[in-house]
Formats: sequence, C-alpha cells, structure tokens
Amino acid sequence: MPRKGASNKNSGQGSNKKVLKAIRESAENIHGKIMARKKPTMKLPVRSLSNVRYQPRRGFFEMAGQKKERTLTVNTVKTFAQTLRMVALSKELIESDDIATKREAYYVSKNWEDARFAEQPESDTVMDDVEAFFAVNREQLGFIPEEKGGDVAGRLIVIDHDRDTGKALRIDCTKFGSGAYSIPISVEQLQFETKAKFILVIETAGMFQRLVKHNYWKQANCILVSMGGVPTRACRRFIRRLADTKKIPVYVFVDGDPYGITNIYRTLKVGSGNAAHLNEFFCVPQARFLGITPQDIVDYKLPTHPLKEVDIKRARDAIKNDPFVRHFQEWTKAMEQLLKMGVRAEQQALAKHGLNYVIDTYLPEKLAKPERFLP
Amino acid sequence: MPRKGASNKNSGQGSNKKVLKAIRESAENIHGKIMARKKPTMKLPVRSLSNVRYQPRRGFFEMAGQKKERTLTVNTVKTFAQTLRMVALSKELIESDDIATKREAYYVSKNWEDARFAEQPESDTVMDDVEAFFAVNREQLGFIPEEKGGDVAGRLIVIDHDRDTGKALRIDCTKFGSGAYSIPISVEQLQFETKAKFILVIETAGMFQRLVKHNYWKQANCILVSMGGVPTRACRRFIRRLADTKKIPVYVFVDGDPYGITNIYRTLKVGSGNAAHLNEFFCVPQARFLGITPQDIVDYKLPTHPLKEVDIKRARDAIKNDPFVRHFQEWTKAMEQLLKMGVRAEQQALAKHGLNYVIDTYLPEKLAKPERFLP
Repeated sequence: MPRKGASNKNSGQGSNKKVLKAIRESAENIHGKIMARKKPTMKLPVRSLSNVRYQPRRGFFEMAGQKKERTLTVNTVKTFAQTLRMVALSKELIESDDIATKREAYYVSKNWEDARFAEQPESDTVMDDVEAFFAVNREQLGFIPEEKGGDVAGRLIVIDHDRDTGKALRIDCTKFGSGAYSIPISVEQLQFETKAKFILVIETAGMFQRLVKHNYWKQANCILVSMGGVPTRACRRFIRRLADTKKIPVYVFVDGDPYGITNIYRTLKVGSGNAAHLNEFFCVPQARFLGITPQDIVDYKLPTHPLKEVDIKRARDAIKNDPFVRHFQEWTKAMEQLLKMGVRAEQQALAKHGLNYVIDTYLPEKLAKPERFLP
Repeated sequence: MPRKGASNKNSGQGSNKKVLKAIRESAENIHGKIMARKKPTMKLPVRSLSNVRYQPRRGFFEMAGQKKERTLTVNTVKTFAQTLRMVALSKELIESDDIATKREAYYVSKNWEDARFAEQPESDTVMDDVEAFFAVNREQLGFIPEEKGGDVAGRLIVIDHDRDTGKALRIDCTKFGSGAYSIPISVEQLQFETKAKFILVIETAGMFQRLVKHNYWKQANCILVSMGGVPTRACRRFIRRLADTKKIPVYVFVDGDPYGITNIYRTLKVGSGNAAHLNEFFCVPQARFLGITPQDIVDYKLPTHPLKEVDIKRARDAIKNDPFVRHFQEWTKAMEQLLKMGVRAEQQALAKHGLNYVIDTYLPEKLAKPERFLP
C-alpha cells in the first residue's frame, strides 16, 4: 500500500519518530507476552466526562487518569485484533508519509478479513482508543478528519514542503489578493515565520472577506484567520501551533450571541467536554474575546435581534453548568447581561455605521485596550 | 462611506463599466420621468419557475421573458425607494471597489430612515430584484454571499491584484504544499494562466486532501478543485470562468448516490430551478460526470451502503420531475440502475483496494476514456 517514491525524510517532525517508537514498543511488548504464553493487554484511558478534570492553570479539560484494561480473551479477540491492525495502519501511514480519513480507514478494513469493521462507528471508536492509548492526536497517527476549514491571510509565511522534491515551500499569506491560504486537514508538519503583533480569529466568512479585501492586516500588522462558524480541528490546531511557536496573542471576533460565545469561542479556547483527550492539542488557551461583547451592543448602539428560545436556553445552561463560564465571573456577568437585554447582535451589525466602520473605528478602538478583552 | 484610498482603477473589468453605465442610464430614465411629472417605472423579470425555459443547447434553465412593472404609486413608494437606494449602494460599491454581503446591505439600510428594511428577507428580495433588473449576477453589483467555499491546487496561476498598490499578484497553485488556494467570495476580477488538460472537481475535502498530498495534479497535469459538498456560488462561478476563458474540460468526481448526482453534480452543471436568473452565470454546462457511476459500483466491486429512504425518494423524483435527468436517457438509466441495485457508494470506498488505488488505478482508467463520462 505505501506509494512508490513516498518518503518520510521531508516531513522532518520529531513527533513522527516519537510516535513510531511508541508503536514499536507497544507491539514488542504484546509480541513478547504472546511468545511467553501470557495474555497480552493494552491499558486505555477511560474516555468519559467522569474521567475529566479542569485545571484553570493549564487552561483546558484533561483526562483524570482512569484506565481500562483490554486483555486478549475469547470475548475481546476481535476488538483486540482490530486495535492492533489500526495501529499497524497508523505505522504504515507515518512511514510512507501518507494520510487516511476516518472513512478511508474504515474502507481499508474491508480487506482485514475477520477483523473487518461492519460499520464506520466501530472503526471510529477503535481509532479514538488508539489515539488515547498513545496520548497523541489522531493527526500525528496519520489519521485525518473528513472536514476542511479555516482560511488565512496577512503577515505570515507558512513553511510546508513539496512531497516529491523535499524542497521547502514558503507560502506568503500577504500575496493572495482577495483569496486566502486554505489550511490543510493536517497541520503537524507546518512551520511559521511572522512578525505580526497578533492573530485575529473571525467567525464569519463575510467579515473575513471584508478585512481581506481592505488589506486590514497591513494596517494592523496582524494575521487574519477565518473560522467559518465552529472551527474545525485543523483550524484550531493551526491557530494553537502558530500562537505557541511564535508567542503571539490570539484575539477572537465573533457574533455577540450565546452561540458565538460558548459554541465557537469557548470551544476554540478550552475545548469541549466530550473529547477531553484531545483538548490538550486542539484548544487555544491564550485566546481572548475581542467582541462582540454584550456591552458593545450598548456602546456601539448596534441593531439587534431578540434572543431566540435556543439562545436563552444556551445562555442559562452555560451559567449553570459550563465549568468555563462558571470559572470566570466576567463571563457569568456577560451572559447575565445578554439575558437581561434579551437581544443578540451579529458582527456585521457594525455596518449600520458604514460598511468600513469596523475597520476605521471599531477594531482600532478595541485593539487600543486589549487588557479589557474578556477572558 | 467610500474608503479613503479606495480606487477602481485596478479592478480593470469591462463588466464594471457596463454595470455602472446601466445603473446611470436607469437612474437618468427615472429622474427624467419625475422631472416631466410622469410616474417612473421599473420593469423587472418575473422570478419564478413559471417563467423559466430549458434549452438543452444553451445548457441551463433560463428566464422566459415575462416582466412585472413596478410603478411609483402610494402603495409602492417604499419598495420603490428601497430599490433605488439598493441600486445607489451598488453604484457606490463598484465605484469604491468595495463589497457588501447581503447581511451588511441589510444593516446599511438601518440608516435609510423611512426606507430602512425591517427584516433581512425584505432586503434580500429587493437585492434579487435589482440583480434580475440589470440581468447580472449579484457579485457584479458588489454584493457578495455570506458563505465561502472551494479550494484549489494544481497547475494554475490565478492573477489577482493588490488593492493598495494596484500590482498584479500571481498566485501559483502548485506552491501550496498540503494546503490550497481558497477561492474568494467574489471571483469576477480574477484572471487565469494554465496549461492543465482538465479541471477535476471533487466532492469531499478528504479525497481532495489525498490527491493534493500526493501531488496528483503533476501526474495528471490538471487543476484540482474541492467543493466540500454542494458548491457555493463563488466556487461554481470560479470553475465556470476558468473553464470558459481557458477552454478546458471539467470532470466531476462525487459520491455515487442520488445526492451526489442531483444535488451536487446537476446543480454545478445546469443550475437550480429556483434561481434561474442566475444559472447563466453560475452553471458549468461543460461539466461531465467522471464518477462514482452506478456501473463503477459493479465494475470496481465497491463496498456499499443500502439506499436510505431519502435517497430512494430523491432518485424517483429526479426520474419523474427533473428536466435534466429526463432530458438525458443516460441519466434516467443510471438512476434506475441505482434504484434497482438499492445501494450507494462513497468516493472513498475505493480505499478498499488500497488507499492510493484511486490515484494509481481508478482515475487513470477513467481518464483514459472521457468519452464514456456521463453527460
């Protein structure tokens, strides 16, 4: 299955070697047990909310450490075999610098005879187990999500490599005109060069297009990233790696409604509850909330819409149950203010004051006082 | 509202000048009538299925020519004023080389005093009227959709311009590594250079990423475009302009199911019924269907899923009511074959034969006989 000419020499990540080493060690361990006529076992972290802990200092939900043991028995033999085949597929992917989506991995299994998966959810579960077992994110194992998303423009050079020649490719995100650089599904191999002062992460494609069209990144010396709604894994990981390696702040500009605040901003910053073993890689703890804040609706006299029932439910639920909103008094207060006003405002509502008010007034005023951004 | 430094000198499209001229003429016409104390009128095409005709030779649904007249009366004064203000906003956008999303246009109207819109659907309708009135697509009026979508990699240089300096920007789509060029929301200003033999348009981001990762465009000398599901307006317009100006064929590679065939391929090729005044600009009549065909499922022994109820309904409906499927016997037969087999296959099902079987075997075999592609 490895492609001719495929080679790992250019991906050049230490993480690849580490993962390969871990795979080899676990395989030798299991092989050794079998040769010694003992029952081989794999210890997997328990993946559920009951095994999650929130450490404000680390900034994301993380696994609490409970493990379940998968021992080879008559009952577990199929799952055990599937887990090992999935690990073997991962090894093959890394060694041949290839990738497979969850769906492709499922179809590949159709050739595993008795170990084949009947339905994709089964293979997804085994993949999640493997991911948690090696305590890395799926992308480091060569497995990539189906969905793509995230556009970039501005003062950033992304360094990728040509797979055939091994040559470095310098992708200058100031040179895309009204277009943009589209973030690949897996970003582990990318490196960055930038002198930008901050990353501005934007919810809607329309607002992103406005800022790109007007070269806003020149004026503000920044990098613009469009999430296009709830950010994909690749988009979150890209922002995280960029912000970490270049040590630049991340400011988030979304709609002023419970969805923008919890589903988009909160997910970007601290991750989500049901995939805690991934938050370590995919959250962006350094993110700060630029706007639209509930107070902006007042200060900038924005046109609003009434909160929908689902908004009200979401806001009340966040105040009561979301450990992130509960931890930060500022967020509890902001959610209460929104509920009290009974309205929401879209980021494009700033157009009431002129299409480019956002560029000429709103963003400069906000960026003059980043210490006021919500946490 | 025009931005300082904004200038139209670099957008350099004849289409801009034509639209501005049409706007000026219609305004002078209305102004003249008013000065002569006559009632001004605007003739708008009727936008409904009853006013649509299908000409196989032209390749898309088009308006049949019925018009409605909007005369200034006590009852129509508000809509009339709103229509004129929307036209004025368009003129301003074109002259200042700016853009506005439908939502922004709605918010801008909040400053139109009595002519302001109460809800966005009202302003959307007026915008559709203006679009149909000038017989151009919204993007040519400076109005852009909210959503973005469509990635490009391969043997193509896109020529855009830097808005500040006016310099041409040559965007080389062979130089993005595992990333891609993200199509902007409006593509009217773009120019192209390419020696590619064809454009391969792909449904899923996962398949696109595989072909990009393996530099498939080198091997096949082509341009890869990812639709990421149903293509956005910008993505469809981009493919159309590229295929028209460079006279290269368009091959479409989607899932082998009624959704991939009708909702994705059919929409891309001939447009949709409810926006017939736009199909002229957004359809890609030269598109041909590479796969996954129902026959591919047999020939390549693909793993399948049973057709869902919604699939069966969609296929039956297409055979009965879709003028496109009805026109082409090949499509009627293909849909019937799918219904008879009772199964569907995803494009990634090819992974059963190895992850890169699609690159090494399937695509080369299909591309050897493009005359066999479905119409």
